[in-house]
Amino acid sequence: MIERAAILSTGDEIMTGKVVDTNSNYLADKLVENGVDLVAVLTTGDVPDRLEWAWRTAVAMSDLVISTGGIGPTVDDLTTETVARIAGVKLVRDQASVDHMKRLFATINRVMPENNLKQADFPDGAEIIPNPLGTAPGFRLPITLASHTSQLIVLPGVPREMKPMMENWVIPWIQKNRGTDKVIAMRIFQTFGMSESALDQAVAGLIKTDEARVGLRASFPQISLRLTVEGKPGEAERKLEELAQRVRDRISEFLFAEGEITMEEVVGRLLIDRKIKLAVAESCTGGLIGHRLTNVPGSSNYLIGDLVTYSNEMKMDLLGVSETTLRSVGAVSEECVREMAAGARKRTGAEVAIATSGVAGPDGGTPDKPVGTVCLGLDSERGQISRRYQFRGTRDWIKLLTSQVALDWIRRYALNMQIAESALFRR
Amino acid sequence: MIERAAILSTGDEIMTGKVVDTNSNYLADKLVENGVDLVAVLTTGDVPDRLEWAWRTAVAMSDLVISTGGIGPTVDDLTTETVARIAGVKLVRDQASVDHMKRLFATINRVMPENNLKQADFPDGAEIIPNPLGTAPGFRLPITLASHTSQLIVLPGVPREMKPMMENWVIPWIQKNRGTDKVIAMRIFQTFGMSESALDQAVAGLIKTDEARVGLRASFPQISLRLTVEGKPGEAERKLEELAQRVRDRISEFLFAEGEITMEEVVGRLLIDRKIKLAVAESCTGGLIGHRLTNVPGSSNYLIGDLVTYSNEMKMDLLGVSETTLRSVGAVSEECVREMAAGARKRTGAEVAIATSGVAGPDGGTPDKPVGTVCLGLDSERGQISRRYQFRGTRDWIKLLTSQVALDWIRRYALNMQIAESALFRR
Repeated sequence: MIERAAILSTGDEIMTGKVVDTNSNYLADKLVENGVDLVAVLTTGDVPDRLEWAWRTAVAMSDLVISTGGIGPTVDDLTTETVARIAGVKLVRDQASVDHMKRLFATINRVMPENNLKQADFPDGAEIIPNPLGTAPGFRLPITLASHTSQLIVLPGVPREMKPMMENWVIPWIQKNRGTDKVIAMRIFQTFGMSESALDQAVAGLIKTDEARVGLRASFPQISLRLTVEGKPGEAERKLEELAQRVRDRISEFLFAEGEITMEEVVGRLLIDRKIKLAVAESCTGGLIGHRLTNVPGSSNYLIGDLVTYSNEMKMDLLGVSETTLRSVGAVSEECVREMAAGARKRTGAEVAIATSGVAGPDGGTPDKPVGTVCLGLDSERGQISRRYQFRGTRDWIKLLTSQVALDWIRRYALNMQIAESALFRR
Repeated sequence: MIERAAILSTGDEIMTGKVVDTNSNYLADKLVENGVDLVAVLTTGDVPDRLEWAWRTAVAMSDLVISTGGIGPTVDDLTTETVARIAGVKLVRDQASVDHMKRLFATINRVMPENNLKQADFPDGAEIIPNPLGTAPGFRLPITLASHTSQLIVLPGVPREMKPMMENWVIPWIQKNRGTDKVIAMRIFQTFGMSESALDQAVAGLIKTDEARVGLRASFPQISLRLTVEGKPGEAERKLEELAQRVRDRISEFLFAEGEITMEEVVGRLLIDRKIKLAVAESCTGGLIGHRLTNVPGSSNYLIGDLVTYSNEMKMDLLGVSETTLRSVGAVSEECVREMAAGARKRTGAEVAIATSGVAGPDGGTPDKPVGTVCLGLDSERGQISRRYQFRGTRDWIKLLTSQVALDWIRRYALNMQIAESALFRR
């Protein structure tokens, strides 16, 4: 029965601060999601006695130990032999793994170095976990120390190899061996415009702690909410759908998607679906809106152009902003962004254009327009909308938040929703 | 004597995968930098018996335990009382800390909640570590378990509070208590255009392991190299300067700065210094070059505008790219980027303009121009330069690498260096 787990993270790269250990974060997330209690994460370097200590400690405290790293081909990779030593078994070469590695090397027209053979050695009794994307397979081995049995799962440290192995092999295995006939159903909601604590409070009153696990993840300025329901097959899914509907009803104003998707992907799908061509005119965001839009493959289907007019001259020359506007109310004004958007639409022939202008800081603020003052404008055949916001934060953050509001405006335009009411960014 | 350290990282947010533990990475880096051997990182949640286990384990294995998190005002914050319990001492309230907290709350016009008082309680005998940026001070406490003494350093989990405390208090304290009269001298080199392994090899032959510690950090596409020399005061600095000169001589072609600085900051300083006005014309990078340039405060002094012409029509209309060029050799061609750069310079009146066009993928590749084909062009009164590159990788990566090459071209232009020879991106 798998109730409590420990994560083992090994490697000198982590211990010298060279890389951030994102594997443990990923594994912790997956364990919680699958109803396993994570007791501790133990991290140590490629030093034999430290590794042995870490393994023994992890086994003693848990029913499941998941380890990443230390199964490469070099002399520093000590995980497999450490496990075999603790388990008191010998290493056995697996011919199928040798063949797999040789094939991988053949596809890149290289001869497999001798030291890679080490990656086909496994502790006697281990079950091999295939690694389709790399040379090092993982393995599972039950081990008993001081009459307590723990299941060891050994995975490579490379995230792009480790994650599919976790998703395709380890999680199904955990589900089968949790010692329960319950299943886990899950839904993710993407929100924007609500602070993490406001979202937390909104949902806390809706869902009882025994109905579902509620998890918030802030990848600013996007905050996602995850509902996880554990129950009998069929029942869990039904319960989840009921709770999901409660969530939708409560946070509909801020909910922009369900599933693992970003705001720019949502915008892209909408613009393709509705055949809308877009133009952008940026001042304070400096190209970030264009950058985010073009991170989505296929964005050339809807983004005609993005005019980053950082100087007043460019705002006049390229976008036709009037000198009167710049002189009377300045570049950071609703008048200016309306003229910028109108100019961008005219220049490009787009159906809709959006414009930003603001004081990103840290300098350039005035009493009337302090750092964080940002104006957004939208121009389309349906008319013009503009709005002035007062944001707080660093330059990076103000740029990012402004770009998110702009994308949300485009999303609302495509959906024929109210625009100016969006993104109040409530705390 | 401080030789071996353990890091303790606590909090349910880390154990449920909600946040990535970047504190441990930072601390590991600082410990290595200061000549302390990091034995292990122990991570656990806000559960009393697990915390106590983690503290006892960390004390047993090291001379120094640095802990982050668990000293907030809530009932989940158990670090201080756990430490006091293990040390067998009582908690004592510190009036100076109470006053500091009250002042902090006064500056934001709020009354301090009662539960914050908890943050002014310290184990008897602890030395308080001031926290200028937050309510929770840290503390140092020597503790002896099983006749082994370890120094406990307790810090808050919020990185922007923890890091200055580490730099201003803990590191000087470690240096004073390492039990050596040696000092540590350090230098950072920023490179671009060389792979991590090529840089590693280039330097390996130059510097013996007993002369300096060499650390590489890849924050793609920028790779930094850190030299750390330990020695007597005066001697360490002299030795470092000698080694630094060797490094400069060897990697001069790829070295763009010394110190903690990004490529866009280097470019910004140069353009201000030489009073150069810049324009950008982007296709495949989609606004990323503008975004990066405008991440630097004061960039409005040198960036006039950035024309993101994602469609062929825009390339013609806004930048004056000829239909013949687009028809005969296409948008991804050296001809096209030269015309784009020339058009951007003409439009904006900038001294120099740079343009990008390429196939960022994952779709859109052809046998002639596979995904990763990227052309860069530069136009100035000194003439035109263009070049075609073949990059590999994901869409994000191709955009990022292209933007880095473009910034490097601008840097080389400002320095009157050879441009077309740059950024071969050798593996």
